[in-house]
Amino acid sequence: MKITHIAVLAVASLSASVAFAQAKPEDQIKYRQSAMTINARSNGALNAMAKGDVPFNKEVAQRYATVIAELSDLPLLAGAYGPGTDRGALTKADPKVWSEPEKFKAAFDRFTVAAKALPAAAGDLATLKTALAELGKTCKGCHDNYRMNDYRM
Amino acid sequence: MKITHIAVLAVASLSASVAFAQAKPEDQIKYRQSAMTINARSNGALNAMAKGDVPFNKEVAQRYATVIAELSDLPLLAGAYGPGTDRGALTKADPKVWSEPEKFKAAFDRFTVAAKALPAAAGDLATLKTALAELGKTCKGCHDNYRMNDYRM
Repeated sequence: MKITHIAVLAVASLSASVAFAQAKPEDQIKYRQSAMTINARSNGALNAMAKGDVPFNKEVAQRYATVIAELSDLPLLAGAYGPGTDRGALTKADPKVWSEPEKFKAAFDRFTVAAKALPAAAGDLATLKTALAELGKTCKGCHDNYRMNDYRM
Repeated sequence: MKITHIAVLAVASLSASVAFAQAKPEDQIKYRQSAMTINARSNGALNAMAKGDVPFNKEVAQRYATVIAELSDLPLLAGAYGPGTDRGALTKADPKVWSEPEKFKAAFDRFTVAAKALPAAAGDLATLKTALAELGKTCKGCHDNYRMNDYRM
């Protein structure tokens, strides 16, 4: 029952995503890609501090962490893989996102949990490092299974 | 003294943008475009509540507001118009961003101030509406002068 599965996925996101679900597929695709770009850059900035490439700055770290946390489960991301958005613009999202929605949601939820733990951890370099390692596992967990190497239409 | 102007613009952003400034022009362009996409969607979601198209939800409104506030002046945005990023990928950024950096920075700063006022205002529909109107003016103020209608290389 594919429609039921999609409904489960849709209901899992916040109520405001009702409005978002009406966005055109190409806009949803652009949106989720933009959020991933922001998350990747934010994660990169935090990892640069964790590695000592740039000095640790608690305030900046917490702000990057907040961005990742907010983008991890606002209608933005989870709600941007709605029905019919498996195509409509160039995307690396694997069709499995829509064919095995419970598994995708479980993988995404692990990312959300790790992302939401980030702001509290970002006040201290040691706890930030641990939290980033956890976050990285959840990024990889989704990307390995649900992100293709190349764009497809 | 163009280099001096650029230096003023660069110094205005947070210290962590030092690392960001080293990003390739095409990555900075992709980044600022992604942040604008997120801001536009977040602003759209808030305006949908302001107009009554979707029910006002304080928690969701505050989270969208936080995303806009954080993206308004993290190294993300102000730091993503660095030297040499006037070209390198398709962009709608007007060359005036780099030829009149003080004016651009002043227009951008107005956006930052309005964006940072948003989270506190988002707890109440009436104050949210007022804050969104103010924010809208600052979006327009920059877009009218510094965003071109069409992409250019």
